[in-house]
Amino acid sequence: MSSTLAELDGGATPVLASSAERPTAWPHRHLLDTDVLSWPQIELVLDTADVMAQIVARRRPRSEALRGIGLTNLFYEASTRTRVSFEVAAKHLSADVVNVSVGGSSIEKGESLLDTVRTLESLGARVLVMRYATSGAPYLVARDFRGSVVNAGDGRHAHPTQALLDLYTLRRHLPGGSLRGRKVVILGDVLHSRVARSNLWTLTAAGADVWLCGPSTLLRGFEAWAAAGVGGERRFTVTSDIAAALRDADAVMALRLQQERMAAGLLPSVHEYAARFGLTAERLRLAREGCLVMHPGPMNEGVEIAPDVASSAQSLVTEQVANGVAIRMAVLSLVTSVRLREDA
Amino acid sequence: MSSTLAELDGGATPVLASSAERPTAWPHRHLLDTDVLSWPQIELVLDTADVMAQIVARRRPRSEALRGIGLTNLFYEASTRTRVSFEVAAKHLSADVVNVSVGGSSIEKGESLLDTVRTLESLGARVLVMRYATSGAPYLVARDFRGSVVNAGDGRHAHPTQALLDLYTLRRHLPGGSLRGRKVVILGDVLHSRVARSNLWTLTAAGADVWLCGPSTLLRGFEAWAAAGVGGERRFTVTSDIAAALRDADAVMALRLQQERMAAGLLPSVHEYAARFGLTAERLRLAREGCLVMHPGPMNEGVEIAPDVASSAQSLVTEQVANGVAIRMAVLSLVTSVRLREDA
Amino acid sequence: MSSTLAELDGGATPVLASSAERPTAWPHRHLLDTDVLSWPQIELVLDTADVMAQIVARRRPRSEALRGIGLTNLFYEASTRTRVSFEVAAKHLSADVVNVSVGGSSIEKGESLLDTVRTLESLGARVLVMRYATSGAPYLVARDFRGSVVNAGDGRHAHPTQALLDLYTLRRHLPGGSLRGRKVVILGDVLHSRVARSNLWTLTAAGADVWLCGPSTLLRGFEAWAAAGVGGERRFTVTSDIAAALRDADAVMALRLQQERMAAGLLPSVHEYAARFGLTAERLRLAREGCLVMHPGPMNEGVEIAPDVASSAQSLVTEQVANGVAIRMAVLSLVTSVRLREDA
Repeated sequence: MSSTLAELDGGATPVLASSAERPTAWPHRHLLDTDVLSWPQIELVLDTADVMAQIVARRRPRSEALRGIGLTNLFYEASTRTRVSFEVAAKHLSADVVNVSVGGSSIEKGESLLDTVRTLESLGARVLVMRYATSGAPYLVARDFRGSVVNAGDGRHAHPTQALLDLYTLRRHLPGGSLRGRKVVILGDVLHSRVARSNLWTLTAAGADVWLCGPSTLLRGFEAWAAAGVGGERRFTVTSDIAAALRDADAVMALRLQQERMAAGLLPSVHEYAARFGLTAERLRLAREGCLVMHPGPMNEGVEIAPDVASSAQSLVTEQVANGVAIRMAVLSLVTSVRLREDA
Repeated sequence: MSSTLAELDGGATPVLASSAERPTAWPHRHLLDTDVLSWPQIELVLDTADVMAQIVARRRPRSEALRGIGLTNLFYEASTRTRVSFEVAAKHLSADVVNVSVGGSSIEKGESLLDTVRTLESLGARVLVMRYATSGAPYLVARDFRGSVVNAGDGRHAHPTQALLDLYTLRRHLPGGSLRGRKVVILGDVLHSRVARSNLWTLTAAGADVWLCGPSTLLRGFEAWAAAGVGGERRFTVTSDIAAALRDADAVMALRLQQERMAAGLLPSVHEYAARFGLTAERLRLAREGCLVMHPGPMNEGVEIAPDVASSAQSLVTEQVANGVAIRMAVLSLVTSVRLREDA
Repeated sequence: MSSTLAELDGGATPVLASSAERPTAWPHRHLLDTDVLSWPQIELVLDTADVMAQIVARRRPRSEALRGIGLTNLFYEASTRTRVSFEVAAKHLSADVVNVSVGGSSIEKGESLLDTVRTLESLGARVLVMRYATSGAPYLVARDFRGSVVNAGDGRHAHPTQALLDLYTLRRHLPGGSLRGRKVVILGDVLHSRVARSNLWTLTAAGADVWLCGPSTLLRGFEAWAAAGVGGERRFTVTSDIAAALRDADAVMALRLQQERMAAGLLPSVHEYAARFGLTAERLRLAREGCLVMHPGPMNEGVEIAPDVASSAQSLVTEQVANGVAIRMAVLSLVTSVRLREDA
């Protein structure tokens, strides 16, 4: 059911409106995490993103898909890349975008999250892109909000559009365009990473052999949690042995190290972390030749990733950012298509 | 002179431009408070809002009324609902909207309010929507600014669009669509409330029997002030007797309790305030059956209003927010029509 | 090569695209300072601004020149006038504008400036308008960024669009429209002023006799620095003698006094500064009759400029702000024309 350029260009006709006749109908009104996405649904996002990428590449990157639809970016945590990425994606689709960030809002007056969301809905928001420090908050909101909620990062829980853009980027660069049997390493503070969690679902769904690697204090309990969620034939390994993790890897994703982990006593020092788990050129030689390098950003260069690795030819960091716009355009048009279909 | 949909849709033709031929011409270039509005003028706002509400309800809520007109939201106090409401209203009318909030502005450099406003005017602002902590500031600005000033809340003084949206909401829900003879209670921190003040003028103009009720420390001097302003046959009562106030009421508006009132020694505790003046289901039984419940938001649930009352079928809280967009569209098109008429 | 209204109005045709056939081709992909601008190039900016001013004066101020082009305002310092001026200018040219200010960005997470810029480029920014506290930062960015960088103020170094709008404003008000031989005084904290530095290049290029005047602690080393940069027949004088500076002046530009200069021990007190170097009506009588008065804003009235002088008929302060929009439209269309020409 991925949409065509011709459909997207059609002024008033909403994207994917005719999805009922297509093999895969997108059923999710919200996107809260990737764990509920079937593989065909994930492929639908990626294929739709391909169409969106063509729109982005135009001299005037504009589709009419969300014309007249109010979208609010509700960010309770500081963010440049994710907020701007959603803003750009939404404007490319002609949505009416409103930004609300914690700094200048009446959240300072102590209003509850649900009250704020109901207010934004009454003011015309039909899509709510939200980032929140507490894990699970978007689920609470989604139960109440009558439009579509897109999770742009909730605590350490989930960051679904990041995982989808990572998968999209990997597919474009792995020979054959498939992750089946590929070894993908997620390296760093796995325990506190919403990026690691959302990527675990998509990467294993794509058939990758996923290795999660970090200091033992930043892995504690993760394996049991993940094993409960990852079923069937999906493969993943949790380890503190970085040599074992990197050996013959096809791709490595370094995670951002939050400085507050030191304060919490989980790590002795940034220096020691960099020495033992930093992604250096030397370590990368353990991996396959041409092993792809990724990072969700913003990077602490010299800590979790060496500057020469970050800027090497193998690094996909800036392409990840660029692909994020196409992925978010795809997600926004898919989640709103559910409502439009129901309304029709 | 309320405008028709056909007029609003007309591309380049500004809304209400032909108002000269109509019975009621809107004379106010600014909207600073509701006290200067005659009853026919108030009705004109409400009738225009009815037209605007039809535009809001469309799949693509967009009129050309303010096309090419620069509107600046200048907010010196945190606000979600009011700022976003004006932003959405202005965009529905195709205005060019710029947001300036105190956080990221050179106000931090100590520039005076008037200098800031002159700067914004020179940068093309023809409508200035402003919120300011000091009562009366918009009047100062309006004397200088050559476009239209719309007061979005100044200190404890006035919040005219809130009062208009409250009246609009009440009219839609009171049998017969009239407030004549209806008992409307404004409950809480009347003394410090710009919402109470602006509502006093519109509700009494509409013929309501207005009761203002709160702890005596939060009423002190209010009656004398109000009596000086409310003339003629208008009816209002100021009291600390909540039972007398609520008895047979047709509508109750609970006001937000500012936490800083405790610090100021005006109230012993939030708990005691809630116990004595909180709008609970039990208290509400003193009022007429089906008594309407309102709150300007953001609510302190469990303090000035009980959660079950706030979310009951009688509660119009979310509808107030939604109606705010239509009211603000009406106000923006009316105030700008004066200038457009003068220019013509 | 200045563009015509007809060209600007042409929907898809980018402004100045046909510049190759014109006498003066604009060669600068970035605008980092005014020192690299030849006099014909400066005139091209001013002439283009004349065309832009006509667009601004329309009922609907809109050109298609930057349609589809992503522009990001990246402000690491608080600013109202400059940020809004660029935002308004960019929107008049139909650019897709994104605002990023330090308050709500992941810069708080410690991301480097270059990483942030690469991210914004990957998100689609083709023009980056930036303000930064460190002198020279835009040069660093321009080496990396593939679009156009426009410096909106970097530390004490440069503020090129301010200098261009000052020159534009002076030309409109000086008899004959020329600065040749005119005495222009820049008064105040010259040493720390990016406005003074950028103005020095444009004013001397225009043939003015420039006098830079302030307390000796706020001039120290400036003369040597300026002499190294200002070549040929250009004329300027650095002095602490305010009477000598103002005598027979055609225009005086008062600079903002940063309060932090007191803390740094460079000035005894605001009061003494005002007494000795404040631009008062009495002092202004030393200048030519009708001497023009300017200030880049925001003003400390009563400190570097007396209120009656600031609001006198000689004062061009608000016109400077208004002209800033036209100048920035000119700069934005010129710098982007380079890229469009290369792409063609």
